[in-house]
Amino acid sequence: MPTTPEGPHTLRSGCPVACSLDIVGDRWTLLIVRDLLAGKRRFGEFLESPERIPTNILSDRLRRLQHERLVEALPYSQHPRRFEYSLSPEGRALGGTLAALADWGEHHFPGTRRALRQ
Amino acid sequence: MPTTPEGPHTLRSGCPVACSLDIVGDRWTLLIVRDLLAGKRRFGEFLESPERIPTNILSDRLRRLQHERLVEALPYSQHPRRFEYSLSPEGRALGGTLAALADWGEHHFPGTRRALRQ
Repeated sequence: MPTTPEGPHTLRSGCPVACSLDIVGDRWTLLIVRDLLAGKRRFGEFLESPERIPTNILSDRLRRLQHERLVEALPYSQHPRRFEYSLSPEGRALGGTLAALADWGEHHFPGTRRALRQ
Repeated sequence: MPTTPEGPHTLRSGCPVACSLDIVGDRWTLLIVRDLLAGKRRFGEFLESPERIPTNILSDRLRRLQHERLVEALPYSQHPRRFEYSLSPEGRALGGTLAALADWGEHHFPGTRRALRQ
């Protein structure tokens, strides 16, 4: 996990999979990346996804994704202050992982279908 | 999540990524798959990996992987009863996801290097 907001990571091990799972190894983070790749930008749009992410988890994951510089936030309203979120190039690079997971999931869970071809 | 030991999944949504994350969306499961792909077979071998998985988490994840038929267990000792674990073809198919995550992680975490080329 990161040690300071701007500092380097304390690596979990020398394995890139292990380190990556510290960021995306949960049930929600990659779904937000999926939604961002599909063009969603605003807090309320993520809430509308069929998995019904709880607001506190969405806030936490968006903060962590920004901390990791995988997501950028730009204000689109000042009163109240609200943001539009987008993927950085490095965040967008998670599309390969999403595509692999979607491939696998389509086979393992008959009846599911990916919404987006990466 | 599965509803019965042999029954169908209750799908989290129609999205194959969301459903897959119900199985592999945590910090540990894909590390066990990584180790199995690398040839590890026995409980003690998984414990030796540098991430130091706790024994209770390892037991739980192996049980869930068997439940999903991604891992098969064969006894190699009767007294005490011990098992060797191996990936089913469907478990082995998670190698694509691991490879994508390793690719991404090698870029995001300088100094990490995958042990295995899938």
